Amino acid sequence: MILLLTLAAVAAPAPAKPVTPSEIVAKAPAAEWETVRPEDLLVIDYDGGGRTIIELAPAFAPVHVANIRALANGGYWTGSSVYRVQDNYVAQWGVNEGGPAVPASVVKRPPAEYSRSVKGLAIRPLGFSDPYAARVGHALGWPVAWNPKTGQANLTHCYGMVGVGRDMAPDTGMGGELYAVIGHAPRHLDRNIALVGRVVEGIENLSALPRGTEALGFYKTGTVARLIRTVRLASAMPATERPSFQVMKTGSASFGAYVRARANRQDQFFNVPAGGVDLCNAPVPVRRTPAPSSSR
Amino acid sequence: MILLLTLAAVAAPAPAKPVTPSEIVAKAPAAEWETVRPEDLLVIDYDGGGRTIIELAPAFAPVHVANIRALANGGYWTGSSVYRVQDNYVAQWGVNEGGPAVPASVVKRPPAEYSRSVKGLAIRPLGFSDPYAARVGHALGWPVAWNPKTGQANLTHCYGMVGVGRDMAPDTGMGGELYAVIGHAPRHLDRNIALVGRVVEGIENLSALPRGTEALGFYKTGTVARLIRTVRLASAMPATERPSFQVMKTGSASFGAYVRARANRQDQFFNVPAGGVDLCNAPVPVRRTPAPSSSR
Repeated sequence: MILLLTLAAVAAPAPAKPVTPSEIVAKAPAAEWETVRPEDLLVIDYDGGGRTIIELAPAFAPVHVANIRALANGGYWTGSSVYRVQDNYVAQWGVNEGGPAVPASVVKRPPAEYSRSVKGLAIRPLGFSDPYAARVGHALGWPVAWNPKTGQANLTHCYGMVGVGRDMAPDTGMGGELYAVIGHAPRHLDRNIALVGRVVEGIENLSALPRGTEALGFYKTGTVARLIRTVRLASAMPATERPSFQVMKTGSASFGAYVRARANRQDQFFNVPAGGVDLCNAPVPVRRTPAPSSSR
Repeated sequence: MILLLTLAAVAAPAPAKPVTPSEIVAKAPAAEWETVRPEDLLVIDYDGGGRTIIELAPAFAPVHVANIRALANGGYWTGSSVYRVQDNYVAQWGVNEGGPAVPASVVKRPPAEYSRSVKGLAIRPLGFSDPYAARVGHALGWPVAWNPKTGQANLTHCYGMVGVGRDMAPDTGMGGELYAVIGHAPRHLDRNIALVGRVVEGIENLSALPRGTEALGFYKTGTVARLIRTVRLASAMPATERPSFQVMKTGSASFGAYVRARANRQDQFFNVPAGGVDLCNAPVPVRRTPAPSSSR
């Protein structure tokens, strides 16, 4: 850092280039951010306070996402709970057994939306190898893997990604039970489960919960970590109460610079830049939508 | 699964081969496990109950590990705390500012034990690519990366690994502040920090703590998540109270089978095996040492 400052002083007037990933994110212009549609934001409010907000991914799992929207609008999850927290793996919530009536529009046996065509995705390759997939990168603001031979792409199980719990195949899960990744990316689940979104705020309300003591991190019967008061789409909330988020456009110049900076850390702390980064260690920047006066 | 059983029935008497990673671990013979030496187990007991046990890695960071042993034996950490918990990153504990006298044998400025020679490591290559390093695999029961050109190997920042907090380089940290990885592997820290071990039990006493609300996950001054009552080496505990652990030998046949099973899941749940696995998603199996009567 001292060296960089000295060089800048010699070369004179050019403003210091942002060097850390967070500096690059902070300086990205407004045009490089995409505002999440309110119908793609799922807002979970817990009994006793606390909120988790999820961005849905209809471009990857349209039937499952439509189910989740219908379940939210039907009040399906009211009074349900987080019933499984397995360390270094997942936190899972929803209606595990029994439960209220399922809204009529819900598709009970959705198709296996584990991958989709690469067409229209305009994927930006990460540029580094991946032990799980032929290719990895980002598309539409999401981490993806794809296979040039099959032309199929899939969302990947990175930290904070949300998937649909299911029983044994060919069941794909209706959407009434959801989980979030709270540990090292369990990428072996890719293409085996429908991923439907990611947590954009409040993951600590899941990741910091006590771990379940039973097999697979399930809570002992009668033990409740967190009761769910309501699950609503932001689009169903009064406009003044709606949260709003922006995701960095993964095709933007700033995102490219961000990935390069994650792969080659120049922060003062680092002695040796890695020279590479794995897909799940380059999370797509997400922020609260700035107030109009403060937007650039 | 049904298909596999049918084939076995046709081929007749051979006993069913273990197919899942956990089945392979359960059936590994006693000779494929290495018992951790008591001087390599660090036992942290918290005020109000709870324990975290760490296996030290003297083969990779001998000076830092010697410091940690001396600090434990000197009661250095008694009354210290977990003062930083950053979601998807690290939980950090020890003496952040000030603190008691440092035992005389502690090396105040240890060398940068960020990597070591590959000589004597007998590394088993993982067999899959890695975005951070030329080669990755396992050695002496640990996950490692190495570079054939330089002949240097390093421990890697996988979930549960323990490192030494430091300030800016060339400081390497004395060992009085330690952290454990509680999120997706921050592999960009490899070769930039001294890794000294891994949590073998009780990581939930760190990973499930409330996240710190200040920058970098530090707790607000005056807020304490967990106070540390004692930190002892197992070798300093009465023999009857000593915990004992075994690590699967990473050169063993069972470990090889385990890695292959992690890379190609045949469990009934899976539709599509990944065909690969990343270093940090193949954690080395660790278990409590079985009682003599039950050991195989």
